[in-house]
Amino acid sequence: MKKVILLSEIIIFLGDIVSAVYGLEEDFYVSGIASRETSDKDLIDWVHPNCIDAQKTAEASMSRLIITSQNVSYTRALQDAEKVLIQVENPYNTIAIVGNEFFVEKPHPGVHESAVLSDSASIGQNASIGANAVIDGCTIGDNCVIAENVIIRKCVTIGDHVTVKAGAILGEAGFNFIDNKKGGLMRFPQLGRVIIGDWVDIGSHTCVDRGAFSDTIIGDNAKINNLCHIAHNVQIGEKTIIAAHVNVSGSTQIGSNVWIGPNATFRGHQTVGDHAFIGSGANVVSDIPSNEVWVGNPARFLRKNEK
Amino acid sequence: MKKVILLSEIIIFLGDIVSAVYGLEEDFYVSGIASRETSDKDLIDWVHPNCIDAQKTAEASMSRLIITSQNVSYTRALQDAEKVLIQVENPYNTIAIVGNEFFVEKPHPGVHESAVLSDSASIGQNASIGANAVIDGCTIGDNCVIAENVIIRKCVTIGDHVTVKAGAILGEAGFNFIDNKKGGLMRFPQLGRVIIGDWVDIGSHTCVDRGAFSDTIIGDNAKINNLCHIAHNVQIGEKTIIAAHVNVSGSTQIGSNVWIGPNATFRGHQTVGDHAFIGSGANVVSDIPSNEVWVGNPARFLRKNEK
Amino acid sequence: MKKVILLSEIIIFLGDIVSAVYGLEEDFYVSGIASRETSDKDLIDWVHPNCIDAQKTAEASMSRLIITSQNVSYTRALQDAEKVLIQVENPYNTIAIVGNEFFVEKPHPGVHESAVLSDSASIGQNASIGANAVIDGCTIGDNCVIAENVIIRKCVTIGDHVTVKAGAILGEAGFNFIDNKKGGLMRFPQLGRVIIGDWVDIGSHTCVDRGAFSDTIIGDNAKINNLCHIAHNVQIGEKTIIAAHVNVSGSTQIGSNVWIGPNATFRGHQTVGDHAFIGSGANVVSDIPSNEVWVGNPARFLRKNEK
Repeated sequence: MKKVILLSEIIIFLGDIVSAVYGLEEDFYVSGIASRETSDKDLIDWVHPNCIDAQKTAEASMSRLIITSQNVSYTRALQDAEKVLIQVENPYNTIAIVGNEFFVEKPHPGVHESAVLSDSASIGQNASIGANAVIDGCTIGDNCVIAENVIIRKCVTIGDHVTVKAGAILGEAGFNFIDNKKGGLMRFPQLGRVIIGDWVDIGSHTCVDRGAFSDTIIGDNAKINNLCHIAHNVQIGEKTIIAAHVNVSGSTQIGSNVWIGPNATFRGHQTVGDHAFIGSGANVVSDIPSNEVWVGNPARFLRKNEK
Repeated sequence: MKKVILLSEIIIFLGDIVSAVYGLEEDFYVSGIASRETSDKDLIDWVHPNCIDAQKTAEASMSRLIITSQNVSYTRALQDAEKVLIQVENPYNTIAIVGNEFFVEKPHPGVHESAVLSDSASIGQNASIGANAVIDGCTIGDNCVIAENVIIRKCVTIGDHVTVKAGAILGEAGFNFIDNKKGGLMRFPQLGRVIIGDWVDIGSHTCVDRGAFSDTIIGDNAKINNLCHIAHNVQIGEKTIIAAHVNVSGSTQIGSNVWIGPNATFRGHQTVGDHAFIGSGANVVSDIPSNEVWVGNPARFLRKNEK
Repeated sequence: MKKVILLSEIIIFLGDIVSAVYGLEEDFYVSGIASRETSDKDLIDWVHPNCIDAQKTAEASMSRLIITSQNVSYTRALQDAEKVLIQVENPYNTIAIVGNEFFVEKPHPGVHESAVLSDSASIGQNASIGANAVIDGCTIGDNCVIAENVIIRKCVTIGDHVTVKAGAILGEAGFNFIDNKKGGLMRFPQLGRVIIGDWVDIGSHTCVDRGAFSDTIIGDNAKINNLCHIAHNVQIGEKTIIAAHVNVSGSTQIGSNVWIGPNATFRGHQTVGDHAFIGSGANVVSDIPSNEVWVGNPARFLRKNEK
């Protein structure tokens, strides 16, 4: 069953964000958010603030409700088509807020009956723990979402508002073998912790290994996508964004506000400065200063990161 | 216990595919299919149609039963060795059919008792749902095999004859964060669907994210290997083959009959034409026309794809 | 609760490894191993044999107990600070042995109640099988650790002292599709085995596919990190080390004592000689002789591997 929301609810929720409303004669229901491919009169449409032909785009919309910035006027064409126009400062941000509030399904707090939860785990308020999750004696903050099949070992501490997507594995021993002097190899002891800040996202099947003797650290608001490997003793700064399949080998230190493209590799023991930008598929084998864009294999300086 | 099959059963099953049978005096059992490394008289041997010395290869076989094309004759040597020779047009295809019919173990239809199945899931005939699978209110067609630990969210629609291997995750929110204007980042709402055609294979631990507002689409007969990431709003055409570790970032559109080598990366928003061939480890940062071979980092045109 | 160990226990355990002990007036407890970041008087500190200023490093330590080679003397400074100095031939190796013996938590032998175990599985002594593991009728040796969510198919044989980390999948059908002559594709039958030697480590979410007709083989003491893909009919030699995200495509043969860097790719059907070294992010599309270092995309010879 499709979820429907009254327009008036949305306007009340947005409050001060709304600069102006045009054409609202009677309340009606909307059932989602439109895209170029899925347009429909019941879906909320919106015009990106950078759209080069905003007025025309708005007038071509199939939707009854359109959210735009003030670069779209309530013209006769919109009027005749009985559209409702809501003007806001930033339609992109507004549509995100509306989508998250009204249409994104929230996980229910609680622990699924199939989860394996240690008595010594410390779990904050409003946590949601999914099916088949294995939660050892770790510490998890408030408002966290731990999805299905996630494994969290004892050595892990997680802040508030953290999402760990399905199948992620946090706190395993790092990959560090030495000669055992008997013809074989033995794992070097891995005794450190994993410390994860607030508002962090960890992607599906991503692995974050514990440090050897000191810790693996992920800063507040860092966002890590699916199938990444974050090795022992790695440090990742605040608001750093890591795309899928990224491999951060041991003891690499990555600053804050760094952007790392899909399938980039760090050989290990590199340092990456704040606001660096690492291209997709980059193979990083040297240190990268702040505010630089590096790409290629091996990764090389391309240009300053002006952003 | 090894499975054994009577030769007569195989001949009956093959029917018209068999051009000629030589040396069959009495029925006997076979127990599998030979390879260069595992030869044995009870295993069915076969000679690839492109083999440069087919006759000699057949005569050197340890097996009692040999399947070849008509470029192998039932010589005195084969006769004296009491071999049975079956001639077919395409031994490669024939051995595949025989292997799949008689020796590959089929999953049993049914839902494993440990699976977590939503009441609102719509599941077709003869589906097999493995242990610890989590199936939300999605739609799954007939004759599908959903292996262990697979997670399928509500927004997913799957056709008939689809195999989803263990640990695959279908329908998660895409990786798309924007400034939340409070010093942090928020996920842009992800409300689209995942639409998967018929005869699709999804590899182990592969992640297919839902679209943001429109859909992520995988065409009929597409085959995707292990540990791939198929991001939000990606489209993949029919009969496209994607090797392991491939990263297809958001909104990339890939045509039909494309071959994508292991560990190739798409930066996002690229278009790839039909019958393109992308080499292993390619880092695709631009559009690729139809019928072209591209390789390298960044990926560059190598030659026309004559195949 | 932190684990504490009496120093005398450690000295007794080390036995002959200890060359000399200085400053031991009375027994005391230690609670772990120090690192540059986590120093504390109760942690055992140690000086790497290659440290360029070993004496000074030892004297600057916060720890009460320091393990060094004989290049550190029990100076007046150490004496005045009431330090205990243990001299050994190889402090790096010694600290590994001490860490593994006294501080690394060992898995408990036994099968978790949520594991799905086939009656026909043959499992050796002292095995530990984690939560939600799915163990089909395979063979597993003595002293193996099979972590949570691991899937092991019937066609797999595992030696002794093997660790399979969480989410690894062993023995799935390989990725091998051929034209089905009806407009689609069919999987070529995959009937071979996976043979894993002794003392092997398989990383989290790593997939090891079975061979088509012959076998996929992993030699003794091979160590494979997280999120790797080992395809059908691959052979990996003894003591070969494979970092995370490595993709070894079908029928590749890798020798012994090879080191493969993170996110390296093998296109398939390559041969790699013993003691080769493959750099991070290398895209291997040709054979690599023994004792050579190859890097880049495509991977090229860089230099002899002198190590």
